[in-house]
Amino acid sequence: MSKTIDFYFDFSSLYSYTGHLRIEEIANKYDYSVNWIPFSLGVVFKKMNISMPVQAKMNYVMKDLPRYAREYNRNFTFPKNFPYNSIPAARVMLWIKQSDPAQAIAFSQAVFAAAFESGRDCSQQDVLADLAKPLAIDSDALRAALADDQIKALLKQTTDQAIAQGLFGAPAFIVDGEMFWGSDRIDQMDRWLAKGGW
Amino acid sequence: MSKTIDFYFDFSSLYSYTGHLRIEEIANKYDYSVNWIPFSLGVVFKKMNISMPVQAKMNYVMKDLPRYAREYNRNFTFPKNFPYNSIPAARVMLWIKQSDPAQAIAFSQAVFAAAFESGRDCSQQDVLADLAKPLAIDSDALRAALADDQIKALLKQTTDQAIAQGLFGAPAFIVDGEMFWGSDRIDQMDRWLAKGGW
Repeated sequence: MSKTIDFYFDFSSLYSYTGHLRIEEIANKYDYSVNWIPFSLGVVFKKMNISMPVQAKMNYVMKDLPRYAREYNRNFTFPKNFPYNSIPAARVMLWIKQSDPAQAIAFSQAVFAAAFESGRDCSQQDVLADLAKPLAIDSDALRAALADDQIKALLKQTTDQAIAQGLFGAPAFIVDGEMFWGSDRIDQMDRWLAKGGW
Repeated sequence: MSKTIDFYFDFSSLYSYTGHLRIEEIANKYDYSVNWIPFSLGVVFKKMNISMPVQAKMNYVMKDLPRYAREYNRNFTFPKNFPYNSIPAARVMLWIKQSDPAQAIAFSQAVFAAAFESGRDCSQQDVLADLAKPLAIDSDALRAALADDQIKALLKQTTDQAIAQGLFGAPAFIVDGEMFWGSDRIDQMDRWLAKGGW
């Protein structure tokens, strides 16, 4: 069994978007697989009483995100509604992941591209169903999953797990018991894996 | 004249410490010089009403800092008083910089090592005078500089300049008109300089 990087993310988190652009490539270099774990950052922020960044930081972030994405040939677009409600997307992802983890990753990548490149409103069931179609996922089953208590419980569980791991933001990467916080730290994690730690 | 990276930092900022470990090496690779600019992060935080991070983040930071420093063979120690008053160190640095920028960098490196590796209290004039001695800086002149209104004005000026540049934290690096915020982003800036931007 290959070793794993746990990738904790929220579909509505700006730097989860940037982080998702790089994580598979880094993991592949070292024959690690990536366990994509959506959680609710909103719940964590509420619990920890963390508020939105100050205006000066947001001004920087708005310049930083397109620049970050451009290095990977992506065209970042700021969502009209931000932060959008990412709970439905996370539930659909966890529902797909139960039967097909690889398909759940493909769905996640589609959601990130739709939300942060194509300007689509990924809080909407119709949009999520539309994104799932090319993956041959039945729209009715998807809608049913969104209302399923067992699926709701899955997201509560990943969120509790994120808090238990000490998370306070997204994304975070946990590899060999080490947490690396922020898409900023992917290069450091890359060197960590190359050197086998230090 | 060589091109310059403006390195905005605060002597009491944890990630200014980590950032200072790498910046000269990166700049040298591309024949850039580094303009070390101390400012008062406390003034910026007060003005922007930014408070200390939540406990979960501090727990991470306390693990992250020694790990970060270890990659560069440094032994990070958390200061007893934190955040310590970094204004005297910044004033001394700016005073030295007026006559000898290279010596001011050497002094800055000595302050960072004393504060974050040797556990010395760099808010104290005696400690600063002691750190300046190997640089052949006269202790009496140093003490006089600390009380000099013109030197006080220099720090006010760099702090105003930091705010005008859009800073909201430290460290920040400004190169070719692009701001990179956080010691996390040195790798990205490294690639930016290697590629000549993107």
